[in-house]
Order: sequence, then C-alpha cells, then structure tokens
Amino acid sequence: MKDGAIGVFDSGIGGLTVMKELLRLLPGESFVYFGDTARVPYGNKSAETVLKFSREAIYFLMQKGVKLVVVACNTASAEALPALEKEMTIPVVGVIEPGIRAAVTATKKARVGVIGTLGTIRSGAYQNGIKQLAPDVEVFARACPLFVPLAEEGWVDGEVAGLVATRYLSEYRQEGIDTLVLGCTHYPLLHGVIGRVMGNDVTLVDSAVETAKRVAEVLSEKQLHREEEEGNFSVYLSDISPTFKQVGERFLGREIPVIHLRNG
Amino acid sequence: MKDGAIGVFDSGIGGLTVMKELLRLLPGESFVYFGDTARVPYGNKSAETVLKFSREAIYFLMQKGVKLVVVACNTASAEALPALEKEMTIPVVGVIEPGIRAAVTATKKARVGVIGTLGTIRSGAYQNGIKQLAPDVEVFARACPLFVPLAEEGWVDGEVAGLVATRYLSEYRQEGIDTLVLGCTHYPLLHGVIGRVMGNDVTLVDSAVETAKRVAEVLSEKQLHREEEEGNFSVYLSDISPTFKQVGERFLGREIPVIHLRNG
Repeated sequence: MKDGAIGVFDSGIGGLTVMKELLRLLPGESFVYFGDTARVPYGNKSAETVLKFSREAIYFLMQKGVKLVVVACNTASAEALPALEKEMTIPVVGVIEPGIRAAVTATKKARVGVIGTLGTIRSGAYQNGIKQLAPDVEVFARACPLFVPLAEEGWVDGEVAGLVATRYLSEYRQEGIDTLVLGCTHYPLLHGVIGRVMGNDVTLVDSAVETAKRVAEVLSEKQLHREEEEGNFSVYLSDISPTFKQVGERFLGREIPVIHLRNG
Repeated sequence: MKDGAIGVFDSGIGGLTVMKELLRLLPGESFVYFGDTARVPYGNKSAETVLKFSREAIYFLMQKGVKLVVVACNTASAEALPALEKEMTIPVVGVIEPGIRAAVTATKKARVGVIGTLGTIRSGAYQNGIKQLAPDVEVFARACPLFVPLAEEGWVDGEVAGLVATRYLSEYRQEGIDTLVLGCTHYPLLHGVIGRVMGNDVTLVDSAVETAKRVAEVLSEKQLHREEEEGNFSVYLSDISPTFKQVGERFLGREIPVIHLRNG
C-alpha cells in the first residue's frame, strides 16, 4: 500500500499547480494525475453533474491502485467531496479544507476574503467552512471568472491583468480584510498581480501549497509515506488538445511526461 | 415535414445569439435549441472529441423530428460539420460558410480578418474556406480567448473590454484589413467595443445574422418554409446551471422559455 501512487484529479490543467507543490514537497512519492479535459471546466456546471464527473474520475484513479486521492479542483472539492468521502476506502484530500485552516490561522482582524470560480463561490464551501471552524471570522467571497482565461492566456502580468484584478478586488480594500484565499487552482499564476493590488498587509493563502502540506500530514498519520528517492509521475487526460502541453507546463513549472488518453 | 421544427445546436449558450437572429427572421418557424452545457466549451477540445459530441447532439435533435439542423457553434461547424453532413438525411447549416460568403462579398481591399476561439482558428476553417472561394483574398486570423468570458461576465463595454479588444485587435490596423469576421457566437455581444477599436472603415461580419439568412434561403430552396403566424421554441440543455437563464437571456435578448434537461 505504501508503494502505491498518489492520485491527483482535476477538471483540467489547473490542478497542475497543486501537482507542482506535491512534487516539490514529496519527491519520493509516485503520482498519477488525471485531468478531465474533455469536460473542463466544472465551475459553470450543476452540483449533480460535478458529482457524477468527480465520481468517475476518482474510480478511474482507484483502478490505477492509488493509496490516496487528491481532489485538486475547487469546484469538485466543494460540490462532490462531502458525498464521495463516504464512498471511498482510501483517504481523499480536497483543496478547500487546507485553505480554510490556513486562512483562519493567518487572519488577525478576523476578516477573510475568498476568490474563486462562480461554482466554488456559489457552493458556499469556503464561507461555510470558515464559519464552522471560526464563527467570529467574517468572510467576503467573490467570483472572478476572468482570472482563469487570463492565466491560460499567459497574461498574468501587465495592464490587462492589473485592470481585471483591480476591478475584482478593489472593494476588498474597503472591507479591511487581512487575508485572501486564492480558491482556484489557476490563481497561483496570478499571485504577483493579486498581491500588488491587495498590498503588503494582506496575506495570500495559496491552496496548492496548503493542500500539499495536508497530503504530507495524512501520509504521515496513516503511515503511508513512501521512502524511495524518486517516484514516477504519469498523466492521463480525457482529451488531448494541442495547447495542453504548452499551457500545462507553464502551470507545472517543468516538463510534462508522456500523456495518456483515458477514453470513455 | 414543413411543420417540423428547426433544430439549433451549440456547445452552450453562445448559440443563443444565432437563435435570436433566427427568431427575428423566421417568426413563423418552431425551434428546438440544444446546448451541451455539461461539456461546454468545445473550443479547447480535440477534433475527435468535438466530432463525437456534435454527432450525439445532432442525433438528439433528429429524434425530436427536426427538418433542418443549425450547428450554431463555430468549433463544431469547423471540426465536425464536413464529416456530419455526409451522415445526415436532412439539411445541416453551419455558422462558418455564411460568414465566409459575407466576408468575401464585403471586402474591397481583399484583406479580411477572422477572430474566434483557439479551436476555430486552429482548425483553419475560415482561412481555408475564404481561400477556396476567393484565392486572392488575404486572411489574417487570430484567437481571442478572453472575449468569451468577457461576454459571459457582461463586461461588454468599459475599460477592461476596451483594453482586451485593443490588445487583440490593434495589429489588424497595421495589416489594413477592411472586413472582420466575428467567428464566435459570443462575439456579437462585443460588437460595440470591437467596432470602436477597428474604426468605421472596417465592416464587421456577424455570423449569427448571416447564418439566419442562410437558413431562410435553404428553407425556401427545399420548400420547407412553414407558413404559420407563430412557432414554438423549446430549450434542452445537458446541464442546468443557476446562471444559465440570466446569462442566456442577455444573449437571446428576451426571456428563455421552459428549459428541459437532456440526460446522458
């Protein structure tokens, strides 16, 4: 069981930012990444559809013999994880809970902002999770639909990114938050411009970093940690588009190994 | 057969701009609209996947007894229409050919620009189609991935839309085009800002308008025109998201009737 790989699932390529942090923190583990690129994005789909797609993805990874599954997709973590956790016999780690814990720890003023896709924000997963853990913390949530295409286009700096970020985030400055959760796996690419708009006194919580830390904790708790020097890393997609490799490597921060197609 | 409805298929809600023009031009016809909202968008998917999804959509509409199918999706028209036309026993009208004809007629300088999603531009469907019809016309094609989320966000005017449009389109001014094809069903919502960036001497070709005209011609040629005063209009989606109605009505320019869910 210890030698099994860690399965990482996302609706598309955004989860590669989580993958990047996992590879950095856990270089001795093997990983199987599955991106549901034929049906990406999940953020604008109903909860029922997100649950159905997520279940299919996790069962696919379980067939590969993984010892733990990371749901590296905020929408799937928000809309499907509570139901799916109950069905699974292996540990499942989502990207939302680690972000919530980090935000509650970071805020001094008890005022936290959360940004994400329409689906993630609409689900209320971050808002409810923070309230449950720290009822005195006030949460200001907002969807930022243009951030995903900006990250994919590579317009992560410069005038357009600055203007879009200002338009989405300037009201946060009035609300006096001191912590902002980047509640979408694409957003770490916009870390720089978001940080500039928010200013130095606001802590940005990067869900990808926090999720990797949480995975390391769970492996350690369950004694599933693998002690090899170097693991394998394979990538499965439900659709291979010509831009995947180029955009994906920007997200992952290194070359993507051989890509396999998952049919069905 | 004359009394059958017209089937209109799109990957999501963009095709509602085509639907709007069809309802305006052919008020006596009945329409069945199918939006594959569970798998939208098609623009970043491979040709094989787009063909598979498009075939499923058209067969679904044919089961509803339609007399003609409009493929109101540029990606599906580019990547799937040539193969699907051969399989079908009823007329199929895409959105690309009408745009090509209008552009070739409109250009005086034989210099045409085409904008669309990554998938549409990559397919070369407009570029090849224009070259085939008018070999002396030079075509300048460019993908504008941020236009779709801008249209869906409703940021169709103002500073962000202006800056994004300038960034995508300013090089067209140097190239001296006199005609620009809006090769994506979302783009009619950005007609104003695109027109301002391009200036008065550039003709914008709206594929939605041209496609509705082409459908009227085909109905007339095949004697399939219906002579009732008012038709029915029903909408099927593969997923119903909470924002569909609100965003869709902005695209359609009027209220959307009862929405049905197509499972599977």
